[in-house]
Amino acid sequence: MSEITKRRLRLGMVGGGEGAFIGEVHRFAARLDDHYELVAGALSSQHDKAERSAKALGMARSYVDFEAMAQQESEREDGIEVVSIVTPNHLHAPVAMAFLKKGIHVICDKPLTATLAEAKTLSQVAEESQAQFLLTHNYSAYPMVREARAMVKEGKLGNIRSIQVEYAQDWLTHSLEQTGNKQAVWRSDPAQAGLAGCVGDIGSHAYQLACFVANTQAKEVLADLSSWGEGRQLDDEANILLRFENGAKGHLWASQVAPGNENALTLRIYGDQAGIEWHQETPNELMYSVLGEPSQRLRRGNGYLSDAAASVSRIPSGHPEGYLEAFANLYCEFAEQLLTATTNPHLPTLATGLHGMRFIAASVYSSQNNGLWVPIGH
Amino acid sequence: MSEITKRRLRLGMVGGGEGAFIGEVHRFAARLDDHYELVAGALSSQHDKAERSAKALGMARSYVDFEAMAQQESEREDGIEVVSIVTPNHLHAPVAMAFLKKGIHVICDKPLTATLAEAKTLSQVAEESQAQFLLTHNYSAYPMVREARAMVKEGKLGNIRSIQVEYAQDWLTHSLEQTGNKQAVWRSDPAQAGLAGCVGDIGSHAYQLACFVANTQAKEVLADLSSWGEGRQLDDEANILLRFENGAKGHLWASQVAPGNENALTLRIYGDQAGIEWHQETPNELMYSVLGEPSQRLRRGNGYLSDAAASVSRIPSGHPEGYLEAFANLYCEFAEQLLTATTNPHLPTLATGLHGMRFIAASVYSSQNNGLWVPIGH
Amino acid sequence: MSEITKRRLRLGMVGGGEGAFIGEVHRFAARLDDHYELVAGALSSQHDKAERSAKALGMARSYVDFEAMAQQESEREDGIEVVSIVTPNHLHAPVAMAFLKKGIHVICDKPLTATLAEAKTLSQVAEESQAQFLLTHNYSAYPMVREARAMVKEGKLGNIRSIQVEYAQDWLTHSLEQTGNKQAVWRSDPAQAGLAGCVGDIGSHAYQLACFVANTQAKEVLADLSSWGEGRQLDDEANILLRFENGAKGHLWASQVAPGNENALTLRIYGDQAGIEWHQETPNELMYSVLGEPSQRLRRGNGYLSDAAASVSRIPSGHPEGYLEAFANLYCEFAEQLLTATTNPHLPTLATGLHGMRFIAASVYSSQNNGLWVPIGH
Amino acid sequence: MSEITKRRLRLGMVGGGEGAFIGEVHRFAARLDDHYELVAGALSSQHDKAERSAKALGMARSYVDFEAMAQQESEREDGIEVVSIVTPNHLHAPVAMAFLKKGIHVICDKPLTATLAEAKTLSQVAEESQAQFLLTHNYSAYPMVREARAMVKEGKLGNIRSIQVEYAQDWLTHSLEQTGNKQAVWRSDPAQAGLAGCVGDIGSHAYQLACFVANTQAKEVLADLSSWGEGRQLDDEANILLRFENGAKGHLWASQVAPGNENALTLRIYGDQAGIEWHQETPNELMYSVLGEPSQRLRRGNGYLSDAAASVSRIPSGHPEGYLEAFANLYCEFAEQLLTATTNPHLPTLATGLHGMRFIAASVYSSQNNGLWVPIGH
Repeated sequence: MSEITKRRLRLGMVGGGEGAFIGEVHRFAARLDDHYELVAGALSSQHDKAERSAKALGMARSYVDFEAMAQQESEREDGIEVVSIVTPNHLHAPVAMAFLKKGIHVICDKPLTATLAEAKTLSQVAEESQAQFLLTHNYSAYPMVREARAMVKEGKLGNIRSIQVEYAQDWLTHSLEQTGNKQAVWRSDPAQAGLAGCVGDIGSHAYQLACFVANTQAKEVLADLSSWGEGRQLDDEANILLRFENGAKGHLWASQVAPGNENALTLRIYGDQAGIEWHQETPNELMYSVLGEPSQRLRRGNGYLSDAAASVSRIPSGHPEGYLEAFANLYCEFAEQLLTATTNPHLPTLATGLHGMRFIAASVYSSQNNGLWVPIGH
Repeated sequence: MSEITKRRLRLGMVGGGEGAFIGEVHRFAARLDDHYELVAGALSSQHDKAERSAKALGMARSYVDFEAMAQQESEREDGIEVVSIVTPNHLHAPVAMAFLKKGIHVICDKPLTATLAEAKTLSQVAEESQAQFLLTHNYSAYPMVREARAMVKEGKLGNIRSIQVEYAQDWLTHSLEQTGNKQAVWRSDPAQAGLAGCVGDIGSHAYQLACFVANTQAKEVLADLSSWGEGRQLDDEANILLRFENGAKGHLWASQVAPGNENALTLRIYGDQAGIEWHQETPNELMYSVLGEPSQRLRRGNGYLSDAAASVSRIPSGHPEGYLEAFANLYCEFAEQLLTATTNPHLPTLATGLHGMRFIAASVYSSQNNGLWVPIGH
Repeated sequence: MSEITKRRLRLGMVGGGEGAFIGEVHRFAARLDDHYELVAGALSSQHDKAERSAKALGMARSYVDFEAMAQQESEREDGIEVVSIVTPNHLHAPVAMAFLKKGIHVICDKPLTATLAEAKTLSQVAEESQAQFLLTHNYSAYPMVREARAMVKEGKLGNIRSIQVEYAQDWLTHSLEQTGNKQAVWRSDPAQAGLAGCVGDIGSHAYQLACFVANTQAKEVLADLSSWGEGRQLDDEANILLRFENGAKGHLWASQVAPGNENALTLRIYGDQAGIEWHQETPNELMYSVLGEPSQRLRRGNGYLSDAAASVSRIPSGHPEGYLEAFANLYCEFAEQLLTATTNPHLPTLATGLHGMRFIAASVYSSQNNGLWVPIGH
Repeated sequence: MSEITKRRLRLGMVGGGEGAFIGEVHRFAARLDDHYELVAGALSSQHDKAERSAKALGMARSYVDFEAMAQQESEREDGIEVVSIVTPNHLHAPVAMAFLKKGIHVICDKPLTATLAEAKTLSQVAEESQAQFLLTHNYSAYPMVREARAMVKEGKLGNIRSIQVEYAQDWLTHSLEQTGNKQAVWRSDPAQAGLAGCVGDIGSHAYQLACFVANTQAKEVLADLSSWGEGRQLDDEANILLRFENGAKGHLWASQVAPGNENALTLRIYGDQAGIEWHQETPNELMYSVLGEPSQRLRRGNGYLSDAAASVSRIPSGHPEGYLEAFANLYCEFAEQLLTATTNPHLPTLATGLHGMRFIAASVYSSQNNGLWVPIGH
């Protein structure tokens, strides 16, 4: 990572109390490069749990109500400068708006909101705020993903024709939500997860990754969504055909019911000159195949890579960097952006999230109508 | 392979002269297990080429006209018992009918015919013949594919929910047909290839493989076909959504324009208990993942496999068997079927081919109508 | 990681100034789980560099002389409790002794010292100190390595017969030390690296890993060392035959001149019932093969793993953890040991390091004598 | 394969009756490219078994006594021109000599003989014969192995420094010979197998492969052999250090007791410019790594390969060729050599086999003397 002034940003967190998954991940990410100091949080809406969680983290100030937190932190001289939102989806919008209105920068987990309507409202609020917004599409911060994006931009694939992207898991094969599993419960509850299940939770990641690397967006989608889990209200699998603005076509498969898959996010992009292939579970490699030549295995940390990869890489090649390092890259780059008043074009923004919500909404609508081509819109 | 009487079947061949690819493959396959003796052929419709080709093969009788060959061979006491048809698609039907009418068994390359109408006509002719018909969907004869099929039948995956199948190549990335490449020329010519390009050539293999292993058929398809190659009339890529008779859903991706892919035929099937994954380029392995357990790497030639795999396997585990061995399995099993008057339920038949043509026709129709769900029909 | 009291240990560092590699790694590792606060350092023996480095890290107290640092920190009420030693090898012993004598706990990079004699002296000093000692054999802290060790202990491999371990790199293929590369210069200088080059730098890691997992030690070694790099004084490759106390035999290959290898540390252990295989570059997987059964692919983060793996794992399966996480595991466990006054049997100690030096010395001696079996001794 | 006159060589076989493994392999290999016609055999020394085996193969002439077979076949006008020897090792020499003396060409399985003394005698007999000799070191006939050899010769690796070769199996982990397993019984019986077990059976293959590709030979070896199987007289595992004539060093690991390994023959060669890696179980790939560049994955059947690979390749890339195809390459090239009176420098000869026996003898001697460096000699 490039050197930046060693001033730590004061960070708050909403959500992420005891038993949470993604909150812990955000904290690892914030800590790794030492650009943040976690000083305040509304880790839970239950008072005792919030207190216990804050104590366990050695956090200075604990809140129960995020509105109160936004208010009070904005009034303190040593109040937080950035807040991380790691709640279920339905709270993203209200929490983000509360802090944006107080001029506090927001780091928000994906998908942006539970509904497209919320996303639009949030966008308006954000436009009126001076504060900045980071959406944690963490997979786009892996070094070899950055390399892939750079390669596409430099024309190393030729004209992009075909994109195959998939994100497969298996943890919802059975209806885990009926056992009380916290992660499963909220993700399969429309009131908390929003209009989509699997498409929102991981399909949105796959879609953002494809767009990020291929440097384009879908103009229309055609989706076939399924709900395999017994009694499950939201989708747990999706096959989505894609037509992109740059003329490419593709397919996105997202599944949470595919036994043997853990976090099998895979991206393949083919142009008229070359193709690339990347797998999240072995993220330090990128296969690059020029037509008629031996495939090349590009690996993180090597001198032959571009700055795009090098700038988000910490250790020598062959020493694997993983999920937390990629997640930390977003935190690191956002800190750099805030501290140096520059704009990093690789960071997912609120606009990214709004487009992502359009993708989700269009996919759901297409599937509800037995597979129409639905424009994503602007 | 199980022992069978050492009587060699007299074999003829139509197509497969100098410069041919698949004819040579059929000859390797016929030879490997020593159940056939190639004695006659109409290897080319050009006299000199037919002669030269026959001579190079040490073949006894050379014809130019397949009708004459069918006639004369059927009249000889030592005439051929079986004919292999390895011509471009548009000749499959007329050649097969000529031999079937003479009571000569037919081994025919896929797809069955150039059009669905031809396929129906051929089916009627076949019904009236005593002769048998083998369609060389060779991938379904790999030992680990047979194992996969057995596992599905035994319920080792639970109820099948999701099927992802793909067959990617890159050799038509550029418009090779414009350079005179023989294989590319006929495959991209509607008059010879028929109603589809990539879907017929390799999509049909992928589809048959998925149905074969999952023990079901699609009831409807929704396709988005592309023709990327400059000046290309037929499709060279397809994304096809599938809904199967057993309730499963899926996606088929076939591409001949994906740089870095040679014959990347991959099948993944997920049930509510387990999933499997198989790759044609490493065919001796089958990954099997029971939910919540470590994935298992099943490998050809081991004692823990079923008879389904063992019966089409020749050498010990760890000594790779490949494409020719799988192809030879079809020839071997067909010989066994002919010589023992049994029926092998694993062999692709004319009915398989007719259904395959319905799949191709439905896919083309769906794509021409911007992605309708089109029933495959019976 | 198991929950521990949220009191951060005050940490110091010797070495690791500007341009250092391993010092940065130690700092990431110390930070990740939030159990340390880096407050003091003698980051360089050059005053200006030490100052600049300390400033860039936002470190409170900067020293040039490690003796002075040990003295002064031990006198402060808020003085460091632990020191990380990340200097070239020849300084490990004097620095470690300085801090141990003041009762300050030591985290020291490997190999323990530059010579066996130093290692013995250091051991005596350590015995007289109340302070504890951690040697950062970081590879032994990967979750799947811990799992492997647990499996061996539980007898899941049967009696161990054969061990193949290797650590291959390529960065010293050419004589990089002649270009002034800082990492190459000291590693190839006997005065700084000690009695061995490659064997000390990475062979020692491979050897410790093998012993750690197989739960045994070599009783004798036979080595053939090479110095391929032009003008290179120390070894850059080694083939070492091993005979272990538990009766197993094996081979260790270490190379820094093998093009295409980055940090290819691989361990394979075979018992009379089963075998295991692990690769550092894909550390989240462990292959486990019971004789006559399909190989199993065990992956980090799954419920079927033992506590040994789970207790050093942070995030769900399929989200790769890497080198920094494994390194951080040592820091985390050492903190836990210090704060809870327990003993973690998995942590590499000074005794581990002393034995490692015996291994290095015996290997060098064996090679100098054209391949004698040399006892490692106690 | 290059075109050759379609005249089939008349082939005989000694050994390879019912229940044999390698005899069947030789027959597949002889058949695949249609250059041989199997007409005579002494398939077993037991009369009934010989008869039954010959009948099942549709073989014209069946013998029990190989001496009688050599005599009678040499007297017939239509007698065999080539004989394949697929007996246990101790019969290789007497059988080969019997046929060589009659001027009949010999294809012999490896190792050449049971003892070095026999090998020398056989060599003398061969020198006096006009007949030619092929030793079936089949792994050296894989296309990508040929490519690797060509690359070494062209200097694409620079000066060779380091060779790691291994051949691991697991089928003798338990003492299978005590169960009556035919393959295990003779291989573990010094009277039939000769002076070595694992080293002769598979170590000899690994050694030949390394020498073949690296274009050199060992000048001295240092071995540590083990016999792990209960009651086993011969070695079942070996770790052998190697020093080559070209200055390279290396290590050979052969094991038949390594659970999880089937026929894991792996070769890695490193020069001062680049390295290569090849695995027999995925034989269609060759990794090639130039220092400082992305590793390249070379695959069989592509236009970027040399003639060396192309000339022993049958089908397009991505359609795997396997063990039988490689074995058949030897048969095909030997036929071409015999029919065209040319010399193919890639074919393993009697000299190859004699050197192999020296390697085996030296390894056994070294191990018996607790690891001396033993010259291989000439």
